[in-house]
Amino acid sequence: MTTLSATLRRALLGRPVASTDAAAPRMPRWRALPVTSANALSSLAYAPDEIILTLVASGTAALALGPLVGWAVVAVMVLIVASFRAAVVAVPHGGIYRMARTKLGPRAGVLASAALLLDFVFTAAVSLAAFAHYAAALVPSLAEHRMAVACTALGLVLLLALRGSNRGRGRRILPLVVAAFVLLLAGMVGAGLWQDAGGTLGQAVTAGHTVDGSGAGPVGAVATALLALRAFSAGSVLLTGVEVPVSAARTVAHPAVPTVRWLLTMMAAAVAALTVGVMHLAHRTGTVVALDPASLRGPDGAPLPEGAEAPPVIAQLAAAVFGPGSPLAVLTIAATALLLLFAAKSAFRSFPALTSRLADDGYLPRQMRVRGDRLVHTWGVVALGAAAAILLLVFRAQTALLVQLYVIGVLLAFTLAQTGMLRLWRRRLAHTPGTRARAAVRLRLGITAVALGVTALAGVVVLVTRFTQGAWVALLTIVVGALVMGRIHRHYAAVGRELTPDAHDDARALPSRVHVVVVVSTLNRPALRAIAYARATRPSSLEAVVVDADRAVTERVIDDWDRARMPLPLTVVASPYRDTVVPLVRHLRERRRLSPRDLTMVFIPEYVVRPGWRTLLHNRTATRQKNRLQREAGVMVGSVPWQIREGEEPRPRSAANLRE
Amino acid sequence: MTTLSATLRRALLGRPVASTDAAAPRMPRWRALPVTSANALSSLAYAPDEIILTLVASGTAALALGPLVGWAVVAVMVLIVASFRAAVVAVPHGGIYRMARTKLGPRAGVLASAALLLDFVFTAAVSLAAFAHYAAALVPSLAEHRMAVACTALGLVLLLALRGSNRGRGRRILPLVVAAFVLLLAGMVGAGLWQDAGGTLGQAVTAGHTVDGSGAGPVGAVATALLALRAFSAGSVLLTGVEVPVSAARTVAHPAVPTVRWLLTMMAAAVAALTVGVMHLAHRTGTVVALDPASLRGPDGAPLPEGAEAPPVIAQLAAAVFGPGSPLAVLTIAATALLLLFAAKSAFRSFPALTSRLADDGYLPRQMRVRGDRLVHTWGVVALGAAAAILLLVFRAQTALLVQLYVIGVLLAFTLAQTGMLRLWRRRLAHTPGTRARAAVRLRLGITAVALGVTALAGVVVLVTRFTQGAWVALLTIVVGALVMGRIHRHYAAVGRELTPDAHDDARALPSRVHVVVVVSTLNRPALRAIAYARATRPSSLEAVVVDADRAVTERVIDDWDRARMPLPLTVVASPYRDTVVPLVRHLRERRRLSPRDLTMVFIPEYVVRPGWRTLLHNRTATRQKNRLQREAGVMVGSVPWQIREGEEPRPRSAANLRE
Repeated sequence: MTTLSATLRRALLGRPVASTDAAAPRMPRWRALPVTSANALSSLAYAPDEIILTLVASGTAALALGPLVGWAVVAVMVLIVASFRAAVVAVPHGGIYRMARTKLGPRAGVLASAALLLDFVFTAAVSLAAFAHYAAALVPSLAEHRMAVACTALGLVLLLALRGSNRGRGRRILPLVVAAFVLLLAGMVGAGLWQDAGGTLGQAVTAGHTVDGSGAGPVGAVATALLALRAFSAGSVLLTGVEVPVSAARTVAHPAVPTVRWLLTMMAAAVAALTVGVMHLAHRTGTVVALDPASLRGPDGAPLPEGAEAPPVIAQLAAAVFGPGSPLAVLTIAATALLLLFAAKSAFRSFPALTSRLADDGYLPRQMRVRGDRLVHTWGVVALGAAAAILLLVFRAQTALLVQLYVIGVLLAFTLAQTGMLRLWRRRLAHTPGTRARAAVRLRLGITAVALGVTALAGVVVLVTRFTQGAWVALLTIVVGALVMGRIHRHYAAVGRELTPDAHDDARALPSRVHVVVVVSTLNRPALRAIAYARATRPSSLEAVVVDADRAVTERVIDDWDRARMPLPLTVVASPYRDTVVPLVRHLRERRRLSPRDLTMVFIPEYVVRPGWRTLLHNRTATRQKNRLQREAGVMVGSVPWQIREGEEPRPRSAANLRE
Repeated sequence: MTTLSATLRRALLGRPVASTDAAAPRMPRWRALPVTSANALSSLAYAPDEIILTLVASGTAALALGPLVGWAVVAVMVLIVASFRAAVVAVPHGGIYRMARTKLGPRAGVLASAALLLDFVFTAAVSLAAFAHYAAALVPSLAEHRMAVACTALGLVLLLALRGSNRGRGRRILPLVVAAFVLLLAGMVGAGLWQDAGGTLGQAVTAGHTVDGSGAGPVGAVATALLALRAFSAGSVLLTGVEVPVSAARTVAHPAVPTVRWLLTMMAAAVAALTVGVMHLAHRTGTVVALDPASLRGPDGAPLPEGAEAPPVIAQLAAAVFGPGSPLAVLTIAATALLLLFAAKSAFRSFPALTSRLADDGYLPRQMRVRGDRLVHTWGVVALGAAAAILLLVFRAQTALLVQLYVIGVLLAFTLAQTGMLRLWRRRLAHTPGTRARAAVRLRLGITAVALGVTALAGVVVLVTRFTQGAWVALLTIVVGALVMGRIHRHYAAVGRELTPDAHDDARALPSRVHVVVVVSTLNRPALRAIAYARATRPSSLEAVVVDADRAVTERVIDDWDRARMPLPLTVVASPYRDTVVPLVRHLRERRRLSPRDLTMVFIPEYVVRPGWRTLLHNRTATRQKNRLQREAGVMVGSVPWQIREGEEPRPRSAANLRE
């Protein structure tokens, strides 16, 4: 069964993987840590940039708020991770969707999963846009081809996702990339703090730059607080990805729950330490980034040269600490760029996993559940790729624009999950005897309550400060997505009820007799074969029907019929208005009215032509008749195919088209 | 069988017309004349403009060539019409396609018909663009909405064409419009000549205008001759439509051939007289039109006001002769505009008639032959409408741009037709005894030879002077169209040979036994019904098959099967790579290998859901299986439909979906 497309497919995607090879070995802790924390760590590549560009829009003086905002975001993240550490004890196999669903019901689950799905789309798009930004920091000539770089990277990640095997090289490279990223960043922060203490810390390339239209800084406490809140909502993009370890219980080594809790702790510690360090260093080196590169002015007040832009924060810091263009600086930027690619790829694992679970539960079309021949949920991967490509095109691969829509989905999903968990812990507390056990549950309830409060507050802050900048689009998308999923579920449920057989179902009823009707338009070989097949089924009654849409054609059929001495009657169905479908339906209903318990089988000869464009030249009438007859009760359509071999070697007719 | 769309259809298009009402009464001479000459007469609305705008581009002095060029075009037209008058004697029922085909063979016929089809498309597009121009001359505010006016008119004409009855009001209005046009134009020319003789002829509004970038006139004899040739090629658009009476033999009163010859003579006389008169008057009144209105300068050298443009020649002449805004001038312009609409509509009669004849001969897809319920060749009408709309959009409804591609098709078709007729007359001459009869044939041969020479020369002139301005596109379209039609014909011919049964055709062979295989994916009611139907056909052997693409699903089917005590064996087909199609095909081939002379019928349960978007949620696997099995020899697919009634009133199950 080899065709050109199949060969190409094999070359790109690899050989099929058998279902029996599905189970991957469980990962030990040190292997699971990089895999599950890559997504959260990759936020470090753009979260500091978002905070700084929000602050600098109010003037350079506002940059002093940076470290403070960094601490605030880290504090929220630590609280959320703490609540997740508690949650995995109660809901070990599930993740956010299950947490929200367990105690809040399917609606909340669907809403949370719609939010998460959007979150995954943005993870892919933002990571790829940031990748293009870092690539431009390494190779400046790529700066003007940002879209092309991001889209090429998307193509690469999509291909890897479609190959999808768990045994690929990605599994070996990812831990190296994560380790390099963490070590290089830790080294950078350590060296930077040391230099700062010794007074030898260099300035960032953008130190002293200003942004057009900004003042000297916020005036008064209220303005300062508002600015800090806006910066916080930008920086809360750091929270994305911290939920990944929660759904890893099935893939890590036993005992799963302690491993997951350990993963959460280690991930949070790494992200927190690096974020605080980066924000502090950025402040000390005077790093500036701007939403619009054209609005950036050098210390002399002159705009940047055409096409130039400020490198991302980590790239600027690496240059300031390790020296511009030094091997360590280049390595740091490269490791960050690679990590962003892996973060994008992780979305291609999480998204199809969730859509497949939602399809299992009947909230998405069933084909989302199907695994392709590489064990990949092909539909989910392709849907995510298409959505990410659209986002990249619409937002022209601008990280800062994408981020404005990104955070709201994560915060909504976290809020729903924590609300669900809060209910669960309250119920548990009511049913837990013994002081010591109650104290443990009460602690978890407390952590979850605080985390829920903080998450909800952060959500409100983001919604208020970002509503007009796109958060409303994200929210609307989530709500509409949830409604569509609910509609699909209702449809499947209703169909499922209708299709479930009962004990004495009339669907089992054996029709008493079988009438076979062969639809003939010309008495050619396909028609002869259809008649032979119809006769072979030995029906109770057998007739051929010709719809008289064109007098001349009909008369030729009748002549041929008589001349060939066909062994069955030919009925001519009048069609005064030349329609080939309705008169046939009327004729069949007439028959059926006489004996409603019988089965009518309609045999239609069809031509199978290849290549596909030739189909345009055939079968138009047959297709219309088939589609219409599908809606008739008690009628079954059999298509008798005739494989047209035009242009092929003539072969003995009986050995027809057996090869493929 | 009433649905919303059917009601709308009736309201717009009218009630179905029975085939028995097809034959329209034959037209008497005076009714046939306006019907068949409307197309040729309508060329008068833009041919003078084309000549003048070509001349004026070389300077105002060149306008003196106008009447001469008019005479030249008229001479060519008269020759062509004379050759047609001869041709109808020999090929009374046919038109251009038949003339070219008769003696030059199918290839020439196809080439001529491709050229004619393109010609009809341009007739529609050019007439509508010119209509928009005349509408703007009546109501100046329409000038900036030219595209909208042309497209609205196209929609109207398309609707009328789809209503298509021969008994509509158009039949009564058209003769009035043609008579009004001819009388008003004749009156205008007569009055103009009278005024000119008396020295009271007014000047055109554009008299004294110049065109940017033009010189004082052609310098030297060669330049003048070249300019005259270019103007001639532009003016030869007057030749379009003179072939219409040739194919009218079936629709005019007996005796047909003399009537057609009379129609040709009268049409040619009217067109010739009016053209010569208009060209003369245009010269005397100093009428100027320009390809690009922005390049026109008033007598004072100032450009026209923004958005203003020169009215078409007939509108300018009517204003000069009858007085601007006088009732007669308004009537003349209105009659011209209406005539253009009827010319566009006539293309919607000629084009589908030709495509239907080509489909009859197997050069176009068979559905082109089908008449809709209003006796219209719906496919042809819709194809022409789409092509004309594309032309209007691409050329932004600019008559002058469209005309550059228009003429080449007509001239090519005429050349081919006349070459065919030349051969015919030569053969006739060889087989004609008797001096008198020979003299008649020799006269016809002579006329045809001269006309052929002139037409071919005109074609060469147009091709050379217009090649880069678009004639190559038209020529390429014609050649590609002819090649595609040839390819379609070869395909139908090959298929036809393959499908024609011989005396002891193995397509008649009765399969010895019938194996029925029911494909089951879940044991639900549709599956139960499929099994019941399969059992009702009392096959030689019966089995159910489940493709094991998902272990859990398969096990549920097996459990349900055992619990329901199904009266037939269930075969589990292994699918290690989760494919639902290939393992099924393999299984069927295995069976078939054991008994190749048997028939395998595959029953597939299918869900019929409405509205259509819900289909996306079902049947994906069934559809893929069906499509693939169509390519297997000895296998026949029966789809057992289950009409899902979700959301409808519950009804007794047996009385299912009988209404429509």
